[in-house]
Amino acid sequence: MAPAPGDRDARRKDVSHAVWQVLAEKGFGGLTLRAVAAAMNVSTGMLMHYFPTKLALIAHALDLLDKRTAERPRRVRATPGLASVRAMLLDILPLTPDDTARNRIWVSSWDLALADGDLAADQAERYVRLRASIRPHFEDARGLGEVPETADPVQLAAGAVAFTHGLVVQALFDPARFPKRVQTALLDDYLGALARPADLTVRS
Amino acid sequence: MAPAPGDRDARRKDVSHAVWQVLAEKGFGGLTLRAVAAAMNVSTGMLMHYFPTKLALIAHALDLLDKRTAERPRRVRATPGLASVRAMLLDILPLTPDDTARNRIWVSSWDLALADGDLAADQAERYVRLRASIRPHFEDARGLGEVPETADPVQLAAGAVAFTHGLVVQALFDPARFPKRVQTALLDDYLGALARPADLTVRS
Repeated sequence: MAPAPGDRDARRKDVSHAVWQVLAEKGFGGLTLRAVAAAMNVSTGMLMHYFPTKLALIAHALDLLDKRTAERPRRVRATPGLASVRAMLLDILPLTPDDTARNRIWVSSWDLALADGDLAADQAERYVRLRASIRPHFEDARGLGEVPETADPVQLAAGAVAFTHGLVVQALFDPARFPKRVQTALLDDYLGALARPADLTVRS
Repeated sequence: MAPAPGDRDARRKDVSHAVWQVLAEKGFGGLTLRAVAAAMNVSTGMLMHYFPTKLALIAHALDLLDKRTAERPRRVRATPGLASVRAMLLDILPLTPDDTARNRIWVSSWDLALADGDLAADQAERYVRLRASIRPHFEDARGLGEVPETADPVQLAAGAVAFTHGLVVQALFDPARFPKRVQTALLDDYLGALARPADLTVRS
């Protein structure tokens, strides 16, 4: 007898949960039908009903990553300008166990994406969208006089994304040296430096 | 008859070259004996003489990555302070095809490293050393009055590494939007912001 629709939905959730668990622990490099089956205590044969190929499993994992990223809880952005940039970047950093798992899976996905033209293009587009979502807040910051008038919001957004993702990687490898307090202080130093008017220039 | 020692050294170089090629193209996720054998046009059986296990292949790949990173050409650091920081960070960015391949392989290695306690500890130590190598130049910059007296060289080094590695990742995925000129401009903006004395503060 086929399972009732409600059972099927519940089972799909179980599968997604197991895929996420495997990714958080072993990354895409360790994502196999066998590992997911073991996490669920079922046979790989049962899982092949959901994922007939390795590619189907990877596609599901990437969808899940996008979905959980889009649905993650976010800080309120009540104050415009740099305070909103700060809230957006804090939403990215690995400050909680859930944020850490999600970031760990994103970093893991880069190996896969760099090896595949389509996935690399998807990731490049994700970066375009991320920078575009931050840019208006830097425009506000400039309008409010929080950053110098000469600052380019497009460059500022690219720089802020660079700083944040590079901090993500360091924090993932060394959570003891990069607790929430340290990550937040580094971010505030970064934003504080942007907020200062030009004076000295770098000698090259 | 066993090959002469000179032949063995030449063959070892060929093997390393093929491992690097596979890594640059497919990352650690695509590093298999079969892929390396195909790149060399030899049998996997021949390669098993060098790498009896997958783990031996990975260990060789990681050694190669450390070795090629240590031996890469570097800019002269004639001027102390921020100019030296700039030279060090330019040495990291993917500005040439060789730099791009090396960075692509580093980013790829993070998936592997995050899934293995020992490799993760190695990577955390690499970050400690990288930050420690940049810190003295920020100390010089502070002594020279290039950054505010209140700036902490330890924090500055962590921030500079974060900024640089996050820029590496964006540039790898989108080389067309991040040519040498754009990467350099972003780095100079970053260093330029550090060089400004405190004035405004970020509202939180």
